[in-house]
Amino acid sequence: MSSWIAERMQHIDASGIRKVFDLAAKMQDPINLSIGQPHFDTPEPLKQALFRAVQAGKNAYSQTQGIAPLLEKVQTSVDAEYGHADRQAFITSGTSGGLMLALLTLVNPGDEVIAFDPWFVMYKHLTTLAGGVIQRLSTYPDFRIDLDRVREAISPRTKAILFNSPANPTGRVAAESEVRELAKLARERDIALISDEIYRSFCYDRPFVSPAKFNDRTIVIDGFSKSHSMTGWRIGWCHGPRDVIQQMIKLQQFTFVCAPHPVQWAGVEAWDYDVSDRSAEYRAKRDFMIRELSPLYDIRGADGAFYLFVKAPWGTGTEFVQKAIENGLLIIPGNVFSAQDTHFRISYAATDDTLARGVEVLKRIAAG
Amino acid sequence: MSSWIAERMQHIDASGIRKVFDLAAKMQDPINLSIGQPHFDTPEPLKQALFRAVQAGKNAYSQTQGIAPLLEKVQTSVDAEYGHADRQAFITSGTSGGLMLALLTLVNPGDEVIAFDPWFVMYKHLTTLAGGVIQRLSTYPDFRIDLDRVREAISPRTKAILFNSPANPTGRVAAESEVRELAKLARERDIALISDEIYRSFCYDRPFVSPAKFNDRTIVIDGFSKSHSMTGWRIGWCHGPRDVIQQMIKLQQFTFVCAPHPVQWAGVEAWDYDVSDRSAEYRAKRDFMIRELSPLYDIRGADGAFYLFVKAPWGTGTEFVQKAIENGLLIIPGNVFSAQDTHFRISYAATDDTLARGVEVLKRIAAG
Repeated sequence: MSSWIAERMQHIDASGIRKVFDLAAKMQDPINLSIGQPHFDTPEPLKQALFRAVQAGKNAYSQTQGIAPLLEKVQTSVDAEYGHADRQAFITSGTSGGLMLALLTLVNPGDEVIAFDPWFVMYKHLTTLAGGVIQRLSTYPDFRIDLDRVREAISPRTKAILFNSPANPTGRVAAESEVRELAKLARERDIALISDEIYRSFCYDRPFVSPAKFNDRTIVIDGFSKSHSMTGWRIGWCHGPRDVIQQMIKLQQFTFVCAPHPVQWAGVEAWDYDVSDRSAEYRAKRDFMIRELSPLYDIRGADGAFYLFVKAPWGTGTEFVQKAIENGLLIIPGNVFSAQDTHFRISYAATDDTLARGVEVLKRIAAG
Repeated sequence: MSSWIAERMQHIDASGIRKVFDLAAKMQDPINLSIGQPHFDTPEPLKQALFRAVQAGKNAYSQTQGIAPLLEKVQTSVDAEYGHADRQAFITSGTSGGLMLALLTLVNPGDEVIAFDPWFVMYKHLTTLAGGVIQRLSTYPDFRIDLDRVREAISPRTKAILFNSPANPTGRVAAESEVRELAKLARERDIALISDEIYRSFCYDRPFVSPAKFNDRTIVIDGFSKSHSMTGWRIGWCHGPRDVIQQMIKLQQFTFVCAPHPVQWAGVEAWDYDVSDRSAEYRAKRDFMIRELSPLYDIRGADGAFYLFVKAPWGTGTEFVQKAIENGLLIIPGNVFSAQDTHFRISYAATDDTLARGVEVLKRIAAG
């Protein structure tokens, strides 16, 4: 029997994350600082909105682009924020749904996509799925975007730039000047700028700025998953120039079909649900972690989201994580998010007690 | 500004279905026999199972392959039904999710995929998305599969065969001999056979037979959407040879992430929920429609699902549907599902009153 597997699948390597899951499965009651989602449950009013929708029979397919009441809220907010005549919104099956549709809609085989390393793992794999090639731009050591390097990396095949602020895994929130310059460069060069804004509610040291503010053709990917603890409900939204959005909706019709219908009604409730207390709580957790760890560890970024991307004080990222795991602490080696293996990711989306226990281990193993 | 849209999107044409939606939007209180989903709401016990899962905090990501209790039920059932040592199951985001993952996992650019015309529209578009080329095999006028024609259509580039019984849009349930011969042929030629079994609960004249019974490498796509009225909940399952399934799960990790988590718990309840009364009700509706229409219309297939694919008694399918719409009846022209425009699709997933009103119009316009 021949192998049936398409060639693209050989280039999609999920082993990094799988290895971490495998490690986690073997650990008994780990101090788990590896989780990429809030440690809160979904707010009760959003659960109730879901229940009402289900009881009201909102259980069949919705329109491909999403239910009108949620679309209206998103579109009204987007119009008020950016005032772009041509900006259209639609409802996606989570931000990964939006990312997949954007990349498959834009990227031809052989096209180049610029992404900043370290990055969210999905960027690389979805670019590969579309037949594209990632142009990796390192942002070590401080995770700032160097615009000259972006300029140099642009080629005639550059189709898109993937931008993420606040960022996973670094927690870095890009400064307004950085965002503005990148946005303008993409606009000048007629390159699609895809802005993954899933962590926008979590900015601690400076306000969130979207590149859409400076570039009317920015494709924005966002969702309720992280801000409203709805990761398992699979709902997000996307907005961008109408020609692109129309194609993404066409593709949604044959892939995701629609975001889960009753969940979209919970989204209507979520849209007006204030999550600032959560952001404040994560800010306090961030402050605690930085206070405890910065005497021993080199930590850059960390202005937002709920991650620290920390330089291993000895050995490779993988070696350091191995030691942490031997001590009952589950964190993620940096090479899962990067071409280099020098760092590790801590998620502080955890209880204060778990964070304190994690800090205790990290202090103990800092010197090797 | 250049066009940003990838070339693949030029070949994905959703206009047929969109045209029907546009027509529907303009009609006031149409007699709607166009709907591709049950007219029942989701059963109350499944709603309650969803609510319990949400209240129990099952709202974060699940494992990529699905929650253990549902996986166990599916795997146990699949093992009992087929007894294949190498058959693995996982949970998908609806059957369209399973189809997308299967085609992207298997099909290289330029590979050929055999599909039987008329077909479910998604087959063509998802094959295009993977870079493949559909080899169309007409099954008119009786929608039977002619094995000699399949043999002739197989080329060195043939990667997969898409099979669907009971079928959308014809309602045809393939006979056991047909299924067996197709399954064996695919096995002999080492071609992936993808069996879309979403309508398997709806067989009225002969028992459902899966090609997996005769071909241990069949990839089966199934789900709760049609049988349990859960189309808007986005959950299905897939089973097939382990090497293929492992790759599909890897791809799910970066696209769908997981089927909606709380919905998977409702799936556990749905697995043991008896839907035979629904099937009996649709059989009665099928009988009514055939009794009323067969004196005036040429109807083949119609042994299952909840569709009739009827030859237009005059004009093209599109012309006939135009006339129906002028008379307040919404049905779908056959060219949405086919390279030829000679038929129209009726869905009898509707109330008896709606069916009676539809029949009245169809009798009235049969002679033009």
